[in-house]
Amino acid sequence: MRSKKIRVIVYGLGAIGMLIAKHLYDKEWAELVGAIDIDPSKVGRDVGELLGLGSIGARVAHDDEAIGFIKNSNVDVVVHTVTTYLDKAYKQLEKAINAGAHVVSTSETLAYPWYRFPDLANKLDALAKSKNVSVIGTGVNPGFIFDTLPAFLTSVCIRVDRIKVVRSIDASKRRYPFQKKYGLSLRPDEFYDKMKKGEITAHVGYAESIMLISSMLGVKIDRVVEKQEPVIADKHMKTKYFDIPEGHVAGIRGLGIGFVNNKEFVVLELIASVGRSDYDEIIIEGVPPLKWRNEYGTSGDIATAAMVTNMIPKIVNAKPGLLTMADISIPSIKVNI
Amino acid sequence: MRSKKIRVIVYGLGAIGMLIAKHLYDKEWAELVGAIDIDPSKVGRDVGELLGLGSIGARVAHDDEAIGFIKNSNVDVVVHTVTTYLDKAYKQLEKAINAGAHVVSTSETLAYPWYRFPDLANKLDALAKSKNVSVIGTGVNPGFIFDTLPAFLTSVCIRVDRIKVVRSIDASKRRYPFQKKYGLSLRPDEFYDKMKKGEITAHVGYAESIMLISSMLGVKIDRVVEKQEPVIADKHMKTKYFDIPEGHVAGIRGLGIGFVNNKEFVVLELIASVGRSDYDEIIIEGVPPLKWRNEYGTSGDIATAAMVTNMIPKIVNAKPGLLTMADISIPSIKVNI
Repeated sequence: MRSKKIRVIVYGLGAIGMLIAKHLYDKEWAELVGAIDIDPSKVGRDVGELLGLGSIGARVAHDDEAIGFIKNSNVDVVVHTVTTYLDKAYKQLEKAINAGAHVVSTSETLAYPWYRFPDLANKLDALAKSKNVSVIGTGVNPGFIFDTLPAFLTSVCIRVDRIKVVRSIDASKRRYPFQKKYGLSLRPDEFYDKMKKGEITAHVGYAESIMLISSMLGVKIDRVVEKQEPVIADKHMKTKYFDIPEGHVAGIRGLGIGFVNNKEFVVLELIASVGRSDYDEIIIEGVPPLKWRNEYGTSGDIATAAMVTNMIPKIVNAKPGLLTMADISIPSIKVNI
Repeated sequence: MRSKKIRVIVYGLGAIGMLIAKHLYDKEWAELVGAIDIDPSKVGRDVGELLGLGSIGARVAHDDEAIGFIKNSNVDVVVHTVTTYLDKAYKQLEKAINAGAHVVSTSETLAYPWYRFPDLANKLDALAKSKNVSVIGTGVNPGFIFDTLPAFLTSVCIRVDRIKVVRSIDASKRRYPFQKKYGLSLRPDEFYDKMKKGEITAHVGYAESIMLISSMLGVKIDRVVEKQEPVIADKHMKTKYFDIPEGHVAGIRGLGIGFVNNKEFVVLELIASVGRSDYDEIIIEGVPPLKWRNEYGTSGDIATAAMVTNMIPKIVNAKPGLLTMADISIPSIKVNI
């Protein structure tokens, strides 16, 4: 018999995984029964201890024992927060599915996996169906600000000509790994060099968000353009972690554009730079025109951890297979289930 | 065999019904096959003629022949735009369901019918299930600004303490029936008198929106308060239709509050008054806090007609029975299906 609480394992105890573990511990409807990682400083310990809560009876298992650990823990849902690219995530997702668990993952390319990894997506879909479980990729982005929210906002429109979303982030407020990932304080040539080597990746998921919108609206995107460029400091700047001379990199501007009939239909812009204000803005050019703006911005880590946590009660009742946010009933916080 | 296009009849050719009929005529995926009304100036005519489009082969039938007309027209979906209260709408909905059609209705109390009409709701649910069709009430409000949109915005929150929505409308821009319904130019005592007699109803649906949010979030609302009061002109004002002396009614302020554990959890405020600006604002007090604002406001008629139109491709694939917006995958405009 299944317990009334939804039994969850967090697969990957990075910053987001730890946040989700904490949320799950706080939720009445969830039971955090363990975690999986490869970090020797975490494996074997209690998740509660790592969170500073004392022992809560939720052990961190090593990735090598993942299948048995998930199976024996009678887990309903595995929350997967390990890596951006589906090819790298695949083995982990496979283990969770083979152990009979539903999966909610922050893997950005899983939000619409048919774009970058069509073969793996089909394979994953078949596996999930064969095990009668559901798999979904979500988070704040892809998953919300750049796709499902603008799509939802169009539900009161009778015509949509163009969707533009701007996500503006004050990079100086983000944690160190983000500031580093954004290339803060580099010379522009260093920035481009590191970007070529894949050391600066910034945001991944523009194309996934565009394809998710198009799948919801029923429009055929004929071309997707993704690009990233540095924002150059026009004066000397400082953050807690970086000293940025004038002319060096103060942030990153990423852009995703989806074209329909050779015209821009979706334009997604993420600017994370020192000195920017935090806000999100969604402009729908259509009938009626709409301009929604979140004055406070949406903190990425907190929002992704929240979206994933709130998705857990939905995934246990979803249809089997590899799903996208387009398949799920309107998400919201789940106070009780 | 069913045609690929979704075959639709509009039940009720008031302002909203006419707008929807026009939208359906424009949509590639829909076929407007007829309408139903009781107005002698409309019955027997072609909907296209009423829309100024010339004949489109879509006759307006009288309500008395509704069942046969829907059945014979091989209709997939009936769009019902007749009346606010479910007890008055029930016979019409019953006819559509008995004729084998799915129903999307603008009836405000149908958005969460278990609040005001629990017996009729259960009866309708059983009937819809027995006929294997789906029935839903939606629109801009209830259906969007006051309920599903704020609920969706909380999906990136890990805690929600209070949801406040303000919908501000410049009453001078609304059409005559609205200005009259709002009681413009009346003395305050006349306003209250007409409100008692039910001649001023203003917005109906605060409670439905509150219950819809609570059903989505899994919170137990222990009390709902709904009230309406006049906004008094602090100077002489004018609209296209009304001359408003100082001290007379310039608009209406409606309020719905849902309490959880004796504390305000949902506060919905609609202010439609001469001199107000048009905007919608959704404030989520929680973690993280959010403040989303639509700078342009959301035109009620257009938005309701759009939401209903966009719901049609969803309802044909929904599970049978009486549904709410909480049962539907994330709505959006449907360019193609």
